[in-house]
Amino acid sequence: MRTPTPEDKFSFGLWTVGWTGTDPFGTSTRPALDPWEYADKLAELGAWGITFHDNDVFPFDATPEVRRDRIAQLRDVADKSGLTIEMVTTNTFTHPLFKDGGLTANDRSVRRFGLRKVLDAVDIAADCGASTFVMWGGREGAEYDSSKDLYAALERYKEGLDTVAGYIKSQGYDLKIGLEPKPNEPRGDIFLPSIGHALALIADLDHGDIVGLNPEVGHEQMANLNYTHGIAQALFSNKLFHIDLNGQKGLKYDQDLVFGHGDLLSAFFTVDLLVNGFPYSPNAPRYDGPVHFDYKPSRTEGMQGIWDSAKANMETYLMLADKARAFRADPEVDKLMKENAVDQLAIPTIAEGESLEDFRSNVEEFDADAAGAREYRFVELYQAALRHLIG
Amino acid sequence: MRTPTPEDKFSFGLWTVGWTGTDPFGTSTRPALDPWEYADKLAELGAWGITFHDNDVFPFDATPEVRRDRIAQLRDVADKSGLTIEMVTTNTFTHPLFKDGGLTANDRSVRRFGLRKVLDAVDIAADCGASTFVMWGGREGAEYDSSKDLYAALERYKEGLDTVAGYIKSQGYDLKIGLEPKPNEPRGDIFLPSIGHALALIADLDHGDIVGLNPEVGHEQMANLNYTHGIAQALFSNKLFHIDLNGQKGLKYDQDLVFGHGDLLSAFFTVDLLVNGFPYSPNAPRYDGPVHFDYKPSRTEGMQGIWDSAKANMETYLMLADKARAFRADPEVDKLMKENAVDQLAIPTIAEGESLEDFRSNVEEFDADAAGAREYRFVELYQAALRHLIG
Amino acid sequence: MRTPTPEDKFSFGLWTVGWTGTDPFGTSTRPALDPWEYADKLAELGAWGITFHDNDVFPFDATPEVRRDRIAQLRDVADKSGLTIEMVTTNTFTHPLFKDGGLTANDRSVRRFGLRKVLDAVDIAADCGASTFVMWGGREGAEYDSSKDLYAALERYKEGLDTVAGYIKSQGYDLKIGLEPKPNEPRGDIFLPSIGHALALIADLDHGDIVGLNPEVGHEQMANLNYTHGIAQALFSNKLFHIDLNGQKGLKYDQDLVFGHGDLLSAFFTVDLLVNGFPYSPNAPRYDGPVHFDYKPSRTEGMQGIWDSAKANMETYLMLADKARAFRADPEVDKLMKENAVDQLAIPTIAEGESLEDFRSNVEEFDADAAGAREYRFVELYQAALRHLIG
Amino acid sequence: MRTPTPEDKFSFGLWTVGWTGTDPFGTSTRPALDPWEYADKLAELGAWGITFHDNDVFPFDATPEVRRDRIAQLRDVADKSGLTIEMVTTNTFTHPLFKDGGLTANDRSVRRFGLRKVLDAVDIAADCGASTFVMWGGREGAEYDSSKDLYAALERYKEGLDTVAGYIKSQGYDLKIGLEPKPNEPRGDIFLPSIGHALALIADLDHGDIVGLNPEVGHEQMANLNYTHGIAQALFSNKLFHIDLNGQKGLKYDQDLVFGHGDLLSAFFTVDLLVNGFPYSPNAPRYDGPVHFDYKPSRTEGMQGIWDSAKANMETYLMLADKARAFRADPEVDKLMKENAVDQLAIPTIAEGESLEDFRSNVEEFDADAAGAREYRFVELYQAALRHLIG
Repeated sequence: MRTPTPEDKFSFGLWTVGWTGTDPFGTSTRPALDPWEYADKLAELGAWGITFHDNDVFPFDATPEVRRDRIAQLRDVADKSGLTIEMVTTNTFTHPLFKDGGLTANDRSVRRFGLRKVLDAVDIAADCGASTFVMWGGREGAEYDSSKDLYAALERYKEGLDTVAGYIKSQGYDLKIGLEPKPNEPRGDIFLPSIGHALALIADLDHGDIVGLNPEVGHEQMANLNYTHGIAQALFSNKLFHIDLNGQKGLKYDQDLVFGHGDLLSAFFTVDLLVNGFPYSPNAPRYDGPVHFDYKPSRTEGMQGIWDSAKANMETYLMLADKARAFRADPEVDKLMKENAVDQLAIPTIAEGESLEDFRSNVEEFDADAAGAREYRFVELYQAALRHLIG
Repeated sequence: MRTPTPEDKFSFGLWTVGWTGTDPFGTSTRPALDPWEYADKLAELGAWGITFHDNDVFPFDATPEVRRDRIAQLRDVADKSGLTIEMVTTNTFTHPLFKDGGLTANDRSVRRFGLRKVLDAVDIAADCGASTFVMWGGREGAEYDSSKDLYAALERYKEGLDTVAGYIKSQGYDLKIGLEPKPNEPRGDIFLPSIGHALALIADLDHGDIVGLNPEVGHEQMANLNYTHGIAQALFSNKLFHIDLNGQKGLKYDQDLVFGHGDLLSAFFTVDLLVNGFPYSPNAPRYDGPVHFDYKPSRTEGMQGIWDSAKANMETYLMLADKARAFRADPEVDKLMKENAVDQLAIPTIAEGESLEDFRSNVEEFDADAAGAREYRFVELYQAALRHLIG
Repeated sequence: MRTPTPEDKFSFGLWTVGWTGTDPFGTSTRPALDPWEYADKLAELGAWGITFHDNDVFPFDATPEVRRDRIAQLRDVADKSGLTIEMVTTNTFTHPLFKDGGLTANDRSVRRFGLRKVLDAVDIAADCGASTFVMWGGREGAEYDSSKDLYAALERYKEGLDTVAGYIKSQGYDLKIGLEPKPNEPRGDIFLPSIGHALALIADLDHGDIVGLNPEVGHEQMANLNYTHGIAQALFSNKLFHIDLNGQKGLKYDQDLVFGHGDLLSAFFTVDLLVNGFPYSPNAPRYDGPVHFDYKPSRTEGMQGIWDSAKANMETYLMLADKARAFRADPEVDKLMKENAVDQLAIPTIAEGESLEDFRSNVEEFDADAAGAREYRFVELYQAALRHLIG
Repeated sequence: MRTPTPEDKFSFGLWTVGWTGTDPFGTSTRPALDPWEYADKLAELGAWGITFHDNDVFPFDATPEVRRDRIAQLRDVADKSGLTIEMVTTNTFTHPLFKDGGLTANDRSVRRFGLRKVLDAVDIAADCGASTFVMWGGREGAEYDSSKDLYAALERYKEGLDTVAGYIKSQGYDLKIGLEPKPNEPRGDIFLPSIGHALALIADLDHGDIVGLNPEVGHEQMANLNYTHGIAQALFSNKLFHIDLNGQKGLKYDQDLVFGHGDLLSAFFTVDLLVNGFPYSPNAPRYDGPVHFDYKPSRTEGMQGIWDSAKANMETYLMLADKARAFRADPEVDKLMKENAVDQLAIPTIAEGESLEDFRSNVEEFDADAAGAREYRFVELYQAALRHLIG
């Protein structure tokens, strides 16, 4: 593969390469390095950006001085190696105090602490020049339907998001919020379990204009959903602010595999949408943000495996992007799409200027049986994609 | 069980008791009766309402006279037996012409035909005095990511919904639209796969004020989601317009079992929310619409089994409602809820009158370790529910 | 509920009540006690037995003296409180060395170490008077199809099991092995993912006569399977040696909820099978081993929640057992079962003495259409169970 | 792609290309042709073999003459076009009489009829020179745990299988039985839900020597299982008698997509196992039977789509086979496998001649921490496969 360049806008969470391999049944298999060590190496591999949780850089109980120093040291390394700190987020899930949530914990004192921690991280994000502030509410949820007043939970979620968004505006920060939905794990049922639920809550916010989505491949697939369809709806609502690419093999624990190492055909069509846009909707929103990987090097791997896997994410993306461009440029594909009326879907059903009355009263000829027998060659079109992918 | 009364507002789709038992691997095991025969018997069992697709009452290719006559005959029986026709919907999925969708088919002529069919059914709904018009877009979707321009698909869906809602308004009909999400089956991936996605699209509509949700238990569970959480979010957005109760045993084909015959504890908490509302949010929206069952008598059953199963839906609901009322009225439960701060979630995180500035600068004492060690007894609270349910 | 008695044969893994609440996204929320402290309290709550992994009692790197002392101390407490140590198992998953498996690690030195660790634990089990030795191969598996020679993996699994079983026989220990299947987590795909796969491998063993199953509710449900069907097949093969009861809410991470807090109706029929046996197969094998709970007190809970949840397991089992007995004793249920020919399935299809030749040539009258129209009232029978459960 | 040759041993069920597109929510979108028309065209496309259910060729209620004539006509076409009828099976699921099962129906008269129907089809299979007789017990199961005596059900299943296998032997037919597991659909829970469960029952049969497996990709994936792992275990037990290739996108209804159109990476490793065998187990059983596709041309497709999709199955298989051969022949891959000890798993854990006593007492040095820190590069090895696949 060619070496990634800054134009590729590849970025990595420090917690991804920094994961030491603890899982529910086992302890760490790898040492923890200092965050700047990961950053340095990522830059070397061709990454353009890095992202982090507050506590990826300094401990939960760090003094203000330690926080400042460690952030400064990271920024320094980033500067030197030409890395952009494109996104910052808060850890409101590791410490036991968050066991019942951060913004939606039943205990109000926890919510107040959690909200302040988020606001502190917003300041760090702004300070580091990040353009996106991600909020993954991993602990916002419940195992037991009786343990939450669900209406109040959504009110508190709204309150929290509006507070953070309002604060960003009040400070004049050039930051947008990206919500990251997930259906379950670590909670039995997490609030805002999918892209759709997050979009719906955003529509109810006071400051929803700067709140959008940071959807993760594996999270949507854990809700048995099609990721490409999901980000298409986020784009439709003009809310695809950031993106988390990785791999997942079906309905099980959150695997955070390398991008493409899960459902490869789905990954192909995700990249197709990201690099080529919708085929016949030229005015539709496009995503041009960072290509952010949120994965975990498997616990079996050592330090070499960390870099193998970081590279594999970028390599796979580049390979899929090349394939997707060739797929779209192929005149045979274009022909098949048109023969199957894929382009026709962009034409309004009711003609411009056609009144509803006219539409109902002037009924054109329509042969229902012929329409039922119409030949679609969707399988051949898909096979054409497969041929581009592996042919 | 006591006999259901009209106050219980139990209603049934004619297609539910009328399902003849065809499935992907087998032919009908039961004869089809005329729709009024089902209606008559449902009334006898204590149902308050009925609902139907256009083609549950007259064939796809019926002449206008046949349509009128059969609808009239059904209305007549409903009147005589005191049944309310509370909801009407359109069949845009059975005929081969809809194989690629109704409102989002690639073929524009299909979309025009489909939209007219929906509008015709709206007239029927208004004519029958229904209060809800349900739209389940079962064929709006794809098996293959390449076969649809996803942006155009959402635009067409929006166009279709706005056209129907606009028409309802223009006619002055007292009707609301209820969208019914489903993740898959009969299409590989259906558009608007969950409550969240439907709420999100509604927020983008021009006439979204009269468009809400008709969520079905099994459909949300097919997306690995918690149904009670889902309808809570629909209530939060003031969009729970109608409800489809049934049972599903996990991630498989759409089973449409009797309500309660799937995840019983989840059914209990759904009924708890429906009859008792949110525990500490007295001003939150409540659902007071029909208790509508959308299920299928299993293919093994004969005519007796149809009525057994129809009764079982109502009986289970009534049993769960009694249990849920007793659960909420139990002082021990109230005590447990309060000890576990369930009530506290309804208190805003930031105090009334507290400025964001004050909130950030006047930081109260907070013992993170004590908060982490706080004793929640969510298991005991859930067990208290179980005791009410089966004790 | 009544207090459990030794006759109930309730037992608990020390690792269940002893789980401190670490999960993939959070650290411990509860302190770790000494194993005998858990044992003492379990006895007080009415448990009859306890079970443990070697490293629940002593650390991985304990000296022989420490091992001996801690085991002795636990046995002493068990004796005093009248607890039976009914099962012992080995931890071959927590230490990083097991990251690629114990018996099926690619690295032979790891396999040799792992096998010795298992054999050491067998000695402890025998020494403690346990009747079952459980083997859960949680790390035996892979994330990547290329990382294992799958045939060799099964050969090594067989070698390991035969070695352990052969050792038990050679020592004259009164011990049986119970394999515990699981489909995934912590590995992407675990070998022996379900009851069926484990039964199949046992049939290929040299010493399979003392190797059977220890199936766990949640594990089978994570493979989208019906637990009651699974243990029925284990009984059919005379291989249900031990049992792990808990709760799981569908296809997600391994939740280890309290028994009954997952799929309650399924739990009812599991208990029905355990306490009542198969309805019309009086000579079928019955399970009369320990009623063992393998669950985790949710991470939100404190020390009180540990005991709440331990009690809840036993209480739920006792409630379900009472309901199941009443269900089976109900003459209406018996009548329904017989009307639906449930009893007839126990009659051989080919009559005793009927030759295959006769069977084929002497074809009795058979009305296919009548058979297709036969009235089964399986829904009513299920509803009768529901009535017993919650009525 | 190159044209398939008889050496590729591609075969198709007549019901696959012959599926007319009925699904639970829609009627046929394509006409039904005569079986020989499908056969003719399949031969033209390069297929080597065909397979069928009895009622794919003649109606359920056909007279003996009609049966004979239609089978003869099909055989004639097959002969002329050089097609092998390699497998035959029985339809014991479409007719309403089978609604509660064929071999495990509660109603004994149904079981007797069903068993005779199976035996009749065995005669047809033998007559047509088929080498495999597949038994898919799609209706053997239940929706309700109370509706079956599960022990009796397994006894009847055993009785049925032993009767069929015994009959094959008694007739001297050169036929083997291939069981086809499936977890659900059309029944809520099907008996023998996975490869493992079928292997386990076979081990309990009297005539199990001629009974093996016909595993289907999508069916195992509907149980959340890894297909390649499944067929590896079937090979381990020497029971992989036949194979059903297709595609499935996760946990939903049975999709029967084109092979490779589901989980592509999993399909790659399946083909890798089929064409290359296990990497370091040269003496392990190999599969050399037909490459049989059991898929459905999507309902959107017309007649052209049927042939598009039939070709796509073969093309994808051939492409994957080429990639898999190159993957295995790549010296870099071999090197990576060896560096990661994939070959080492084939070496017995206990040395030849090493007694268990010696193994336990002569403990070699082992550095647990070093073993925990060992560098596995499984991700890189997987990425090497991905590079071969799409590079």
